This record gives sequence, structure tokens and C-alpha cells, in this order.
Amino acid sequence: MSILCVGSVALDSVETPFGQADRVLGGSAVYFSAAATLFSPVQVVGVVGDDYPLAELRFLADRGADLSGIEQRRGESFFWAGRYHYDLNSRDTLETKLGVFADFEPKIPELFRDASHVFLGNIDPKLQHDVLDQVTSADVVACDTMNYWIEGNRDSLIDLLGRVRILMVNDEEVRQLAGEVNLLKAARWVQSRGPEFVIVKKGEHGAILFAKDWLFYVPGFPLEEVFDPTGAGDSFAGGFMGHLARSGSMTPAALRRAMVYGSALGSFACERFSVERLRDVRADEIHDRVEEFRKLTAFEAHVPAGDHV
Amino acid sequence: MSILCVGSVALDSVETPFGQADRVLGGSAVYFSAAATLFSPVQVVGVVGDDYPLAELRFLADRGADLSGIEQRRGESFFWAGRYHYDLNSRDTLETKLGVFADFEPKIPELFRDASHVFLGNIDPKLQHDVLDQVTSADVVACDTMNYWIEGNRDSLIDLLGRVRILMVNDEEVRQLAGEVNLLKAARWVQSRGPEFVIVKKGEHGAILFAKDWLFYVPGFPLEEVFDPTGAGDSFAGGFMGHLARSGSMTPAALRRAMVYGSALGSFACERFSVERLRDVRADEIHDRVEEFRKLTAFEAHVPAGDHV
Repeated sequence: MSILCVGSVALDSVETPFGQADRVLGGSAVYFSAAATLFSPVQVVGVVGDDYPLAELRFLADRGADLSGIEQRRGESFFWAGRYHYDLNSRDTLETKLGVFADFEPKIPELFRDASHVFLGNIDPKLQHDVLDQVTSADVVACDTMNYWIEGNRDSLIDLLGRVRILMVNDEEVRQLAGEVNLLKAARWVQSRGPEFVIVKKGEHGAILFAKDWLFYVPGFPLEEVFDPTGAGDSFAGGFMGHLARSGSMTPAALRRAMVYGSALGSFACERFSVERLRDVRADEIHDRVEEFRKLTAFEAHVPAGDHV
Repeated sequence: MSILCVGSVALDSVETPFGQADRVLGGSAVYFSAAATLFSPVQVVGVVGDDYPLAELRFLADRGADLSGIEQRRGESFFWAGRYHYDLNSRDTLETKLGVFADFEPKIPELFRDASHVFLGNIDPKLQHDVLDQVTSADVVACDTMNYWIEGNRDSLIDLLGRVRILMVNDEEVRQLAGEVNLLKAARWVQSRGPEFVIVKKGEHGAILFAKDWLFYVPGFPLEEVFDPTGAGDSFAGGFMGHLARSGSMTPAALRRAMVYGSALGSFACERFSVERLRDVRADEIHDRVEEFRKLTAFEAHVPAGDHV
């Protein structure tokens, strides 16, 4: 199975309490692919300017990404600069330059149109519709969004919900979208508009998958060093979709496992700037972290005889 | 095994988006006992004024609480009034009247001094020391505290850490106490000053137990209706200590299970005002909720042959 991923391919300048990185690889499609290619082939669609260091994406191609859908145009690449606060849970955007991304019109190469899995990164819902118009056979379509589109392009976004199987957003976004503070009710609101599954990402507090009649909660991994949280959500999405595509299944067991692999990749992404950690993470490290996740929440509910409550 | 609990016995007036309650049962010792007595006998030490409706505490005595350590004095009972915001994650204190609690000097009745388990509710660290001076044989001492004491009575509190086995605080408190944003590092800081275990309560995001060389994370239970979060932390503590005392064990399995029972009781506490829900919750409902917690995080890490990552 292969995954089509459409999103931003960007350059980021990031300051954290631990250091700074200038014009490093970033963007939802880059983080997603860096995680997903550890499990499954990925076909990437995006746009960059003539300033983009495309050679630095070669590690993605080396592990199974098809980058032929990344269009290079005259002009500047999407650039984002941000500074994280002391506790790393909040950040200020210092600068956003859309560059060639402002006129992005995703054209899905013929070869990519039979992808079984589609990830629509956080872009204009109108463009997310355009992608789905070109890819009609996908079994699993997941999409992300943000407050900007929830406020500014709400009708198109709500239409889109009828065309996706999985909505992946953070807790603030799902509350804003549904106009409902209670997460469970907010997820039900989304589900009533189409998506079979809602995944709510809660940063350091983990993530919840809401299915029709069950829930799955994976905690945030207690890292001793959170170095740079940029891209953790897209890395989560990549690990999740990558593992799901590899399993070729949508059973509760497969979805639960994919949630944990997603969380593992999200936690690795935080360990260094940009995709540095995702570039060199080894299979045994991923397995070990998944095992750590298991130990983190496992308990034996069995109560010995005589224990009445 | 029995538990000695020292804390506030109060009257609360609470406003939430769903309604309001006036001068209802509240205070750390009341919530703690309402949860802990479901598992184990509890001996309560506190003080109330002559306005306190002691008869309303009879349900605690009926299920194994010894209330003879609650002293009644001339004057007003500890009174707290608060209003929760729309999302129930934050609240404003409208009024606090310490009343007779201002001069509380815990006197531990002779009969209570051989308790195996001790819970020191959130009171002046000096008084927490006084309790421990009177109870020397306890095997498991747990204590709570708050920002007021962390700022105002820090030295005494840090001394106290050398005398307790479990510190139970919320995430803001442990960060403030340790002067460290990273939760894992903050917990290690506390452990280096005495406590073998640190439990960090994160409200709707669950709770983490930090042991020397393992961690356990229990998520917040996704309730459809959070009615009133007052006392959830003390109810958690009661369920945790109650189950621990009942098991008579401090093995990782017993501690993990106690964390889940604590979380179950914390979630029930939020379903109605005051201790109303804890008053009538049935054993089968508690077991069902523990089973829900198990399903919420359980996954099969086993990867079928051929799955390389």
C-alpha cells in the first residue's frame, strides 16, 4: 500500500530555550514523510521555490518516498520562523512568508492517483477538495486543519468532512470546529458530519482516537529533553498513517497500534531540530519506544479473591 | 489496614456552567474519605465550626470512617466559594473564610496512632509535621500541598519531603516546587529529597506516577458530562490510598492498580456536586469504570511476522 501526502514543504527558523536552527527542513509534508517512510512508501505532492535545498530531501527518497510531485517554481519557499517559550508548550510566530506556497495548486501525478491512503496536510480546505477530486479510489483519507481555516473557510471545511475518514486535529481545533468544549461531544459532532474516526492531538498530554463505539488514549511520552516540538503533530500523523498503510487493516487492533507508533514518532521528532532525529532513528529504537508506551499504561485489573471493590 | 486522613472539613459554594450548590459538603478530608472508605477503613482528623451539618457525614461513618477525630469548635466552619469557567479547567475563588480552621492544631487520638497509611491533605506543612510527630509507625505516608505553601513555607515543606513516601501534587505545583518545567526532571528533583514516589495530577489529562525506575500513566477519563471538578484530586487520592491500603502491598502492580482506582473515583467525583456521586457509587460501577480505563489504553504491541518496523 502507498500513501499520498499533500502539504507544505518549508524552511523553518526555530528558537527554543536550548538553541536555534536557521532555515532547516520543515513543513507538514516533510515531517509526515520522514515518519511515514519508516513504514510504507510515500508519494509527496508540494511546491518549493528555487531557494529550496532539495538535495537534503534525498534521505526521504532513499527510504521510499517518491518526490516527483514536488514542483519547483521561481520564487521563495514557504518560510516560517518561531520562538518557543520556556515551557515549550506555547510559541510565538515571528515570521511567515508563504512565497510560492501562496499559489499552490496541487496537481496529483497520474502515478499517484491510485494511492490507498491519503494524508491531506494543513492547507486551504479548497485545495484539500481539489486533491480528492483527483484521487477517487483511496480507501483511507485523513486530513489535518487549523484555526485559520476553521474561522476563514468553515463551509468548505465542513463539506470536506463528508469526504474524509479520519480527521486529525488538536484539542483546541476540534473544540473550535464543533463549538463545544467537551472533547467527547466535540468528536461526536465531527463524526456526525462524516469522519468515522477523530484523532485529537493534545501535545505533551498525548492523543485520543474517537471511533464510533470505542476510544483509545495514548499518553504523551515523558521525555527528559524536549528539544523542539515543531512538527510533532505531522510526525505523529506520519507514524500513524505509515503503520496503518503497512498493516493494510482498519481493525481496532491495527488502529490502536498505529496510534502508538504515531506517538512514538512524534516523541522522536521532539528530540532534535527539524527532521534530524527522524532521519537517523533505527527500527529497534522505535520498537523499544513502543514497548515503553506499553509499560507506561499497562496494568492488571484482576483483583485477588477477597478484594470486594 | 486503616488510613489516617488529616485535612479540611469544609462547606463549599460552587457555581459551574451547569448549576450551583450552596454550602455543601467539601474539604480535602471529606472528599478523600468519601472515596477511600469504599476500600478501607479511614480515621479522620479535622475541625469544624458549630455551623457544620455533621449529620450529613453519617454516610462516611456507615461505611467505615471513624469521625471521632473531627473536633467541633465554637465559630464558623472553613468556607470556600468558587466559580468555574466555561471549560471547567479554570476557576475563580470568590471567597475563602478559614473560620475555625485558622487555628487548626491536629491532635491525633491515641486510637489512630497506629495507622499503617497516612494521608496529609493540603494544610500548612508545619501542621503536617505535627501529625507525623504523633504518628511514628506508619508505613505509607502520602501528602498533598499547594502553591500557597510552596511559596510561603518552602523550607518546612522541603523538610517534610524527607518524611513522606508519596508526594501527590498537580503539574503546576511540582514544577513550581522543583523550579523545573520538565515533569520528569521535576519529579526526580522531588525524589532526591525523600519521596520514593511522586504522583502528578494533571486534571482532565490524567495522572502520572513516577517511581524510581518506572512510570505509570493513567489518562483522564473522557466524561461526556463534567459537572463539577471540585474535589477530584482528593477523591483520586482517596481511591488511590484506599485501594493501596486494602491491597496491603506496595508492589508496582498494586501501585498501578491503585492509580487506576484513584482515577476512577476522581472521575466519579466530577459527575455531580460535592460528594453526591461518591455517596451512591456502587462497586459494580467502579469495576466497570476500571475496565473502561483498561480498554482505553490497551494495545497489542505484537507485530505480525513480516512487519519489519
